[in-house]
Amino acid sequence: MNDERKGVRQVLSLRGNRPTEEAIPIVREVPVTLYVNGRELITLVTTGDANRELALGFLLSEGFIRDKKDLKSVREDVQSGAVEVTVTGDLSEVHELWEKRTVTSGCGKGATFYSVLDSIQARPVGGGFSVTPAQIYHLMGELHSMSELYRETRGVHNSALADREQILMFRDDIGRHNAVDKIRGAAFLHDIALHDKMIVTTGRLSSEIVIKVAKMGLPILVSRSAPTTLAIDLAERVNLTTIGYVRGDRMTVYTGFDRVKL
Amino acid sequence: MNDERKGVRQVLSLRGNRPTEEAIPIVREVPVTLYVNGRELITLVTTGDANRELALGFLLSEGFIRDKKDLKSVREDVQSGAVEVTVTGDLSEVHELWEKRTVTSGCGKGATFYSVLDSIQARPVGGGFSVTPAQIYHLMGELHSMSELYRETRGVHNSALADREQILMFRDDIGRHNAVDKIRGAAFLHDIALHDKMIVTTGRLSSEIVIKVAKMGLPILVSRSAPTTLAIDLAERVNLTTIGYVRGDRMTVYTGFDRVKL
Repeated sequence: MNDERKGVRQVLSLRGNRPTEEAIPIVREVPVTLYVNGRELITLVTTGDANRELALGFLLSEGFIRDKKDLKSVREDVQSGAVEVTVTGDLSEVHELWEKRTVTSGCGKGATFYSVLDSIQARPVGGGFSVTPAQIYHLMGELHSMSELYRETRGVHNSALADREQILMFRDDIGRHNAVDKIRGAAFLHDIALHDKMIVTTGRLSSEIVIKVAKMGLPILVSRSAPTTLAIDLAERVNLTTIGYVRGDRMTVYTGFDRVKL
Repeated sequence: MNDERKGVRQVLSLRGNRPTEEAIPIVREVPVTLYVNGRELITLVTTGDANRELALGFLLSEGFIRDKKDLKSVREDVQSGAVEVTVTGDLSEVHELWEKRTVTSGCGKGATFYSVLDSIQARPVGGGFSVTPAQIYHLMGELHSMSELYRETRGVHNSALADREQILMFRDDIGRHNAVDKIRGAAFLHDIALHDKMIVTTGRLSSEIVIKVAKMGLPILVSRSAPTTLAIDLAERVNLTTIGYVRGDRMTVYTGFDRVKL
């Protein structure tokens, strides 16, 4: 694994009352500041290993970039932790929306909630893609087997882009939204189509992840963890299949049952 | 438990390939919009059961309220999910800081990072409070035994305010920051001193939780989960004891070893 993504810290490990002083690996957390056309947008804290992907994924999620032709340049200053992105076109409307963004989950990034809902409602996720339970169990097993940094530090969420058969791209981060944004950025850079793929993640199914994945145009979102009522209700509305609590040979389908072949 | 904090949804539960259609409890996620002196500040998504506490805790965390005498009124509109807080004094500087807030962890709320660091650095957490490992194991056990909504829905983080002997106040929320803000709001309303208490939480030890707890003036932060490098380095700087990965009779002390009596 990439050693830049962890640091070593001296800790006191206790078993009962017995202390052992030891050096253990800890996941890295670094601030990365994102500039768009010279304007400071946000500072994300991240594992810091894929800042260009993260920046592009974030800008796609928030509507600053829609298409590859919008992108002029991406420059990463490794020393200062800054990523400077230059895009074409008039961003004044997107910036206005950005300034007004008002939602945070206490565990998530902001977004102008109801306008986002309107935009994804306007283009619900398409049909014609289905999976079997066996494929889902297999993909979750594959996600776990790839999560080296998690096993070492217990401090990251894992996410992957998968087709029916296998994981195509694995990303992890201290933030569950960041892990998905890294995938979105990488898929954008490599021109990977998303309409016949899935996101498989360890993160919970909150409204924000449902919105993010629906906006990516993905038909299925799979999680190791549980959903919220709002996440289920939104997924229903945009025809996104949500599958959660995938553990061993058990799983729960919350929405879009028709995409699961029994 | 309070039934308003969960909803029931019809799902497809699978074991292997065998489906069972059933109705299961799902944790509620609702948007709550916070107004300060008539101005819209933010919309938080939350379980929605303690909106006044959450609003006050959030405003304390972000510097809009410092003291009880700052607070004129708190009004909750249950229908619209709005909390309107009226405070005395000039907020223009705090609002300016708020507008410039730039950090999000991809899993957390924004805050003007470095200025926050400066403010907590100026008043490092005091000494004179210590715990034994047995007390920590006991408190984590107590936290788990109280987490009814988690057991039912698997969709919340649990946090508690505790003294050496027991949990004094238990709060849970879909957002780990919200759970701590609810505690801060409740402690503020009930005039509970914090300098000789701990936060015990299931949430990870990220930089933002360390900053939040250090700003509350608490000497010890205990988590079931793992820390990040930045969380450790900040805790070291402000003399906050951080204890993590508390499971059964094992735990790891990352910073402030002197507050753990062996």
